Amino acid sequence: MAVEAELKIPNATAKRIPLYYRYLRTLAESNVERIKSQEFSQLIQIPSATIRRDFSHFGELGRSGYGYDVSYLIEVFGHILNTQVKKPLAVVGAGDLGKALAKNNFRRNDNLQIEAIFDNNPEIIGTMVNGIEVQSVKDFSKVIKAKGITTAISTVPSKYSQDAVNHMVEAGITAILNFAPGRVTVPDNVKVQYIDLTTELQTLIYFDENFSSNHQFNFSNQ
Amino acid sequence: MAVEAELKIPNATAKRIPLYYRYLRTLAESNVERIKSQEFSQLIQIPSATIRRDFSHFGELGRSGYGYDVSYLIEVFGHILNTQVKKPLAVVGAGDLGKALAKNNFRRNDNLQIEAIFDNNPEIIGTMVNGIEVQSVKDFSKVIKAKGITTAISTVPSKYSQDAVNHMVEAGITAILNFAPGRVTVPDNVKVQYIDLTTELQTLIYFDENFSSNHQFNFSNQ
Repeated sequence: MAVEAELKIPNATAKRIPLYYRYLRTLAESNVERIKSQEFSQLIQIPSATIRRDFSHFGELGRSGYGYDVSYLIEVFGHILNTQVKKPLAVVGAGDLGKALAKNNFRRNDNLQIEAIFDNNPEIIGTMVNGIEVQSVKDFSKVIKAKGITTAISTVPSKYSQDAVNHMVEAGITAILNFAPGRVTVPDNVKVQYIDLTTELQTLIYFDENFSSNHQFNFSNQ
Repeated sequence: MAVEAELKIPNATAKRIPLYYRYLRTLAESNVERIKSQEFSQLIQIPSATIRRDFSHFGELGRSGYGYDVSYLIEVFGHILNTQVKKPLAVVGAGDLGKALAKNNFRRNDNLQIEAIFDNNPEIIGTMVNGIEVQSVKDFSKVIKAKGITTAISTVPSKYSQDAVNHMVEAGITAILNFAPGRVTVPDNVKVQYIDLTTELQTLIYFDENFSSNHQFNFSNQ
């Protein structure tokens, strides 16, 4: 479906799908069933003409004066976003955060599965986390090639983050979810997505201190 | 400074500051020193006239044909976002994720400090995490009132998330960082920010599978 979507819809539209998906989920959880392009435009800060053009690629979804069906759009965009092939994942760093990720293991999506965990601490290497043995980072390249892993989650602390990422990229990783917020340098073919919990918390407190309405928001919904 | 900002700048502008801040940090880490409002507009999908008007509230920052100084804006917006008062925090759920948060403890911001950790598991209650004793959720209300805590981080699993949030809100919590992505219902005076790791990972894989350029992006930069 991802390839199919790539063939049929423009790149600019495809890149906005994750953003649309986030906002639509927030709306659905607030029990909003329909939304007009004008309202959605105000919420998401994308011109309503762009929204209508983007949505038109997915068929005749909106009706004049009625708006778009939120749950239908969530289904369509969720299907596009949900990788349709199995994606084995590696976790680098088997501390508390790495262990938490391995135990949770993205249960919401059957295609996402942590299959290898790495650390450089001899006391941790060889221990088991959720049925997976922690392996040495020295074996990273060998293991991910054998398992066909190209996506990694890094819980390596900030000061070692770039080194760890270099190591992952050399081994063939092309997508990294990074819990160290400092930006790392990677080749153009490698994608990095950052989880910056301090900024998330600061944003939450900022809104709590300064605004009394608009109580439900998420990453992009600000 | 947060209060000062609230007095001087319009609400609509203030609400866009976290978004501006995220994008500017991404630009800085990509070694972008200056950006024109037109370029920033394309990146962030907010009209350039809105950006220029917003930025004008912070003084004469941009010059025609030269653009805005990225590091200066980061400093200004970072100062506004960075809570200027000590914010004691509570963590609810002392599993691996709760422990990881307590040990990391938002070191990047001296004003954010986890001062209490709660769980409902008798085997965990009484154990120490990073020098803090895990307390019973039964004592939540008493403890947070004594410590003046109004911000909580919930690592409670999705199916208990609403119950846990109800309990926190009743006790006086007004800001919640929630690691369970399912939307919860809260009163208008309570803010909830969600960390949805499955969607983050799906988005990363989606971009990795479908796009070969635009390699650096974060939550909002899509």
